Amino acid sequence: MRDLLITDLAEIATPLGTTSRRGRDQGAVSKVRDGEILCRDGRILFVGTRAEREATLGELPDAERLDGRRGTAVPGFVDAHTHLPWAGSREMEFAQRLAGRSYEEIAAAGGGILSTVRSTRGASRDELVAAMLPRLERMLACGTTTAEAKSGYGLSLPDELRQLEAIRAVARLQPVELVPTLLAAHEVPAEHRADRERYLREVCEEIIPSVAAAGLARFCDVFCEQGVFSAAESRRVLAAGSAHGLLPRLHADEFADSGGAALAAELGAWSADHLMAVSEPGIEALAAAGVTALLLPGTSFFLRKKAWAPARRMVEAGVPVALATDCNPGSSNTESLPCIAQLAVFELGLTIEEVLTAVTLNAAASLALGEEIGSLEPGKRADVLVLDAPNLLHLAYHYGVNPVRSVVKAGREIYRAGNLLLAHRD
Amino acid sequence: MRDLLITDLAEIATPLGTTSRRGRDQGAVSKVRDGEILCRDGRILFVGTRAEREATLGELPDAERLDGRRGTAVPGFVDAHTHLPWAGSREMEFAQRLAGRSYEEIAAAGGGILSTVRSTRGASRDELVAAMLPRLERMLACGTTTAEAKSGYGLSLPDELRQLEAIRAVARLQPVELVPTLLAAHEVPAEHRADRERYLREVCEEIIPSVAAAGLARFCDVFCEQGVFSAAESRRVLAAGSAHGLLPRLHADEFADSGGAALAAELGAWSADHLMAVSEPGIEALAAAGVTALLLPGTSFFLRKKAWAPARRMVEAGVPVALATDCNPGSSNTESLPCIAQLAVFELGLTIEEVLTAVTLNAAASLALGEEIGSLEPGKRADVLVLDAPNLLHLAYHYGVNPVRSVVKAGREIYRAGNLLLAHRD
Repeated sequence: MRDLLITDLAEIATPLGTTSRRGRDQGAVSKVRDGEILCRDGRILFVGTRAEREATLGELPDAERLDGRRGTAVPGFVDAHTHLPWAGSREMEFAQRLAGRSYEEIAAAGGGILSTVRSTRGASRDELVAAMLPRLERMLACGTTTAEAKSGYGLSLPDELRQLEAIRAVARLQPVELVPTLLAAHEVPAEHRADRERYLREVCEEIIPSVAAAGLARFCDVFCEQGVFSAAESRRVLAAGSAHGLLPRLHADEFADSGGAALAAELGAWSADHLMAVSEPGIEALAAAGVTALLLPGTSFFLRKKAWAPARRMVEAGVPVALATDCNPGSSNTESLPCIAQLAVFELGLTIEEVLTAVTLNAAASLALGEEIGSLEPGKRADVLVLDAPNLLHLAYHYGVNPVRSVVKAGREIYRAGNLLLAHRD
Repeated sequence: MRDLLITDLAEIATPLGTTSRRGRDQGAVSKVRDGEILCRDGRILFVGTRAEREATLGELPDAERLDGRRGTAVPGFVDAHTHLPWAGSREMEFAQRLAGRSYEEIAAAGGGILSTVRSTRGASRDELVAAMLPRLERMLACGTTTAEAKSGYGLSLPDELRQLEAIRAVARLQPVELVPTLLAAHEVPAEHRADRERYLREVCEEIIPSVAAAGLARFCDVFCEQGVFSAAESRRVLAAGSAHGLLPRLHADEFADSGGAALAAELGAWSADHLMAVSEPGIEALAAAGVTALLLPGTSFFLRKKAWAPARRMVEAGVPVALATDCNPGSSNTESLPCIAQLAVFELGLTIEEVLTAVTLNAAASLALGEEIGSLEPGKRADVLVLDAPNLLHLAYHYGVNPVRSVVKAGREIYRAGNLLLAHRD
C-alpha cells in the first residue's frame, strides 16, 4: 500500500488527545494553516505544514498525492447513535404530525416504534442489508467514516439476532466501519404488553446471552424513559449486558427526567443519549462521572419540539459532549452529520470548535474508539475528510450544503464528490 | 432537439394554475402515481400516467429516455431572493456572533453589510463572475433552475452597474436562469452617512435611470426597515423604479414592523420579503392586495433569532407564500432550497405541499414568471427535477440530505448527481 500525501490544505482542524475528554476541553481544537497530512500503512504518520514535512520527511516522490485544493481537513466523522437496520417507512405518520396529530395519538393507532417493528420483523436479513446500503452511502458522502448501529426493531430473540447479523453483513459490503449495539430494550413488544416482566426476563436471560455469545454486539443500550423502561428496569438490562461483556450506553431523559442521567453516571456508561429533559443534578452527575452526553438535536428538529438539550450548560459543567444523527424512520430521518453539526451551532448554541470535537473525538470515545480514531494525530487511523471550505468555520457558516469533497479511510481515498454537469445553456 | 420522455416516476407532484395564486390554494398540489413527463422543444407536452401516454401519444420510439427510477418529479425550484454577486467572506463575524457579540456591535465596528460593500467594490466584474460560478453550481445541484439575483453591495452608480453586469455575464456561462434586481437602496454607504438625502437622490435620479436604460434589471428592491430606509423613503425609491419600468419588490418588516407590508400592498409589489415582524394589519393588507409574502427562514436560523415569520397565519389569511434562500454572506450563507424547504416545514409549520408551492409556483409568480415556469403543466417550460424520493413527503421527511438526482432545464437533462465511490474496504 502506497503512502498517501494530502497536500495544499488551507487548514487542518482537529481536536487533540487520545482518551475520553472532559467538557472543559470541548472547544480545544488545533488549527494548522497550509498543511499536509501523510498517511502510511493506514495510519497517520505526519500532520503539519509543508515546510515541516519537507524538512523532516523530504520530497516523498513515491507517495500518492491527494490535492487538497485549499480545502480544510478534519477527522472522519463518527456517528455514535443510529438505528440503521430498519425496514419500511413512516412518512405518512410524519405528514399526520405536520397536520396536527400528536405522536401519542399516532402510537395509540398502531404507529410509532411498533410500526417499524412490524415491518422489520417482516424483512429478511438480505432485505435489511439492502435497506442499509443506500443509507450508508449517504453517510459516507456526508463524511461519516465510523457509525454505531443499533438493533431494537426486532424485540424478540430471532428478530434482534437477524438485525445484528444484517449489520455484520453490511459492514463487509461498504467502507463505513460499523459498531453494533444491542437495543432489545427499545420498547415492550405488542405481544408482551400484558406482561412486561416476562419480556424483561427474555431480554436479560435469553437475548443478551445469545447476542454476546455470537459476538454480534459491542454495546448494550436501553430506552430509559417515562412510559418505556424505568431506571430500575434499565439498570437490570445494563447489568445483564455488562455481565456478558456488553458495554453500557443508554437513551436517557429524552422527553422527561426519568433518572437516566443519574443511572448513566452510576454505571459509568459510555454515553447518555438525548438528554433534552436532563435535570441539573443529572448534569452534575454526568460531569462527576465523566460520562459523555450524546446529543441528538435532529430529533428535536424533526419532532418539532421546542425543547433542545442544554448543551451549553453541559459544556460549562464539564460534561464531554458528542453529537449524532439518531438516524431512524420515526424521529430523525437523516444520515447527515454536517446537518446535525449545523443544528448544534444554530439551535444548541455550541461553537464550531465544540461541535467538531463532538462529531469526532468525543463520539469516538463514546464508542470506546478514542485511542484509534477521532483526531488527526500521528499513530491514529488515517480517517480524514477534505472539506470544500477555506477553514473550519465554514462547516456551519456555509450551511445547508454538504461540505465533504473527499473521504480518506485508513489511508486510502475511498470517496470523492463528483457531480456531473452535463450541458450548459450556451 | 429530440423529445425527452421522463419515465417510471413513482410520483409527479406539482402545484397547478398559471397565475399568481391565493394563499388558500397554497397546499393544492396535484399528485400522479406511476407517471411520465414528455418534453418537446423545451416545453412540457404531457404529464400523466404511462397508460395515458401510451393511449394518447403511442410508443414514442424517437424520444430520448430519462429513467426516473421510481423517483419523484417536481418543478424546478425557483429561488426568488438572493444577493448572489458578492466578494469576500464574513465567517469571522459569524464566529464572533457565536461567541456572543451582537450583530449591532459587529456592524458598529465596520462589519455587516458595509464590510461586504468594501470587498465587493474592490472586485472586478470578472472576479464577481468567478465568485458566483460555484454558488450557481451548488444552486443547480440543489435543484434551483431559476434564481433572482440582487445588486446592493455597490451603493454607487459604477459599483451597482458592475454587480449587475456581472449577473448578466454569469447568466451566459451556466444553466441557472437569472432574474436581475437593482437594490441600490440596500443601505446608505459610508461616504453618505452624513447626508442620506443625497444618496437617495443619487439612487432615484442617477442609478435607477442608468440601470433601466442599460436593461440591466427587471426589478427594483429597497431595504424598508427601522434604521435603514423608512416607508416614505422606500416609496420614493420604488416609485422612481416604476417610472423607469422596474417592477417593485421590497425587504419588509424583517426585524421591526416598519410599515413595509402596508407599503407593499399599497404599491401592489411583486413580493414583500422577510416579514419576521409583520403586524396583523400588515398581513391583512398583503392578503387584500394579493401580494406574495416571500419568506426567508434561513435568516432566522442563521442569525439565531427565535423569531420566525408567521407563515401559518399568512397562509390562513389568504396571503400567497413563497420561500427563498436569501443567499448572502452575512445573514444566510446557503444555496440550498431543499434546506429552506425543510426549515419551513420544521420551524414555520407549513405542510410539504404548501412548501412545494412556495418554492416553485409562488416564487415564479413573484418574479413575474408564473405563466412560464413553476409548475408541471403542458405548455410551460420543461424545468423538471427528479428527486431520489418515493414521494413528495420525503422532501422534508428525509431531511438534511440533498434529494435532487437529476435536473432537466428547458427539456434537456443538464445535471445528474453522480458521486464517486472509489473503493470498498473488502
